[in-house]
Amino acid sequence: MLVEFSMVPMKGSDSISADVATIIDLIDKSGLKYRTHAMGTLIEGSWDECMSLIRQCHDKLRSSAPRVYTRIAIDDREGGKSTMGRKLDSVREKLGRDFNRES
Amino acid sequence: MLVEFSMVPMKGSDSISADVATIIDLIDKSGLKYRTHAMGTLIEGSWDECMSLIRQCHDKLRSSAPRVYTRIAIDDREGGKSTMGRKLDSVREKLGRDFNRES
Amino acid sequence: MLVEFSMVPMKGSDSISADVATIIDLIDKSGLKYRTHAMGTLIEGSWDECMSLIRQCHDKLRSSAPRVYTRIAIDDREGGKSTMGRKLDSVREKLGRDFNRES
Amino acid sequence: MLVEFSMVPMKGSDSISADVATIIDLIDKSGLKYRTHAMGTLIEGSWDECMSLIRQCHDKLRSSAPRVYTRIAIDDREGGKSTMGRKLDSVREKLGRDFNRES
Repeated sequence: MLVEFSMVPMKGSDSISADVATIIDLIDKSGLKYRTHAMGTLIEGSWDECMSLIRQCHDKLRSSAPRVYTRIAIDDREGGKSTMGRKLDSVREKLGRDFNRES
Repeated sequence: MLVEFSMVPMKGSDSISADVATIIDLIDKSGLKYRTHAMGTLIEGSWDECMSLIRQCHDKLRSSAPRVYTRIAIDDREGGKSTMGRKLDSVREKLGRDFNRES
Repeated sequence: MLVEFSMVPMKGSDSISADVATIIDLIDKSGLKYRTHAMGTLIEGSWDECMSLIRQCHDKLRSSAPRVYTRIAIDDREGGKSTMGRKLDSVREKLGRDFNRES
Repeated sequence: MLVEFSMVPMKGSDSISADVATIIDLIDKSGLKYRTHAMGTLIEGSWDECMSLIRQCHDKLRSSAPRVYTRIAIDDREGGKSTMGRKLDSVREKLGRDFNRES
């Protein structure tokens, strides 16, 4: 299962990078494959693995913020075909080239 | 403005990589900075630049599918501080190291 | 905890109302407070109650579709203040009148 | 086109009902059909009508908050079949009864 999630803690500041750093530390320790981009994090795992990690991150932020918004998007395809590598490889193959322009 | 979007065309198949390739081609031609990950694409630009490109992608998919779901997430911060590079650099600095484990 | 979710099964048709009916039946049997609108369903409960119901709905759809996209948004505020009734009452109070125009 | 959107202004408080009231006022004045629920607002209209209203709401919040997160979900189906009334009627018909339990 491929899962993307993002969290916004409401705690009196418009900067949340320190909070994001805290939960990346948790994600890193989970052992799951992950990729954090500028709007969220992708993880791969079973329902229980992914949701348990997301709950841990959510609870961590709630322990220091009175309100937390958490967004989760799940792509669940038979045969475990929804993986980060496989999806991007499939698009590259159809497109006939690599992509992304970040600067 | 930093914007993430994703689209699901409903056209009788559970594989949509060819459709994703089609819109990456449009994104690439837009000249905007972008990063496509396995669950969506991030772009940077003004409201008009971003929304015009997203509409172009949406219309392209709708031209070959009877129904399209499009999701957009906007992070708009004063002083143009919400950029892909800046947000990730800020997290790296707080965390004291780089991150991501994709294999 | 207030949770909104929506699901898109990819099974060869652009009509998904029969699938939505199937999961509303599950939601109804859960005993949780809920409101289904035209783009998703809101439920109120603990993390375990909400996530267990969402998983049940997701698994139900996956049993008849090779791919399912599920979206979840959580609003978790201290003191259990994020409830459907309370949030709308608070807006009505600030606005000084009721709202919504559906026809 | 059926569109759901929600906004989170980051301005030093975990209560945002006054901000929500401000934008409901804008939505109400737009003349579009809409329904605000506890996690967002649904509107019906053309791409230009919907996006112009959403931008107006977003800019309104950004004028008093240094950072605003805006989320948009579009359901665009041929023949204008994605409407609030039609989607819920179709589910009621498949389910064979009405639904929702809010208290």
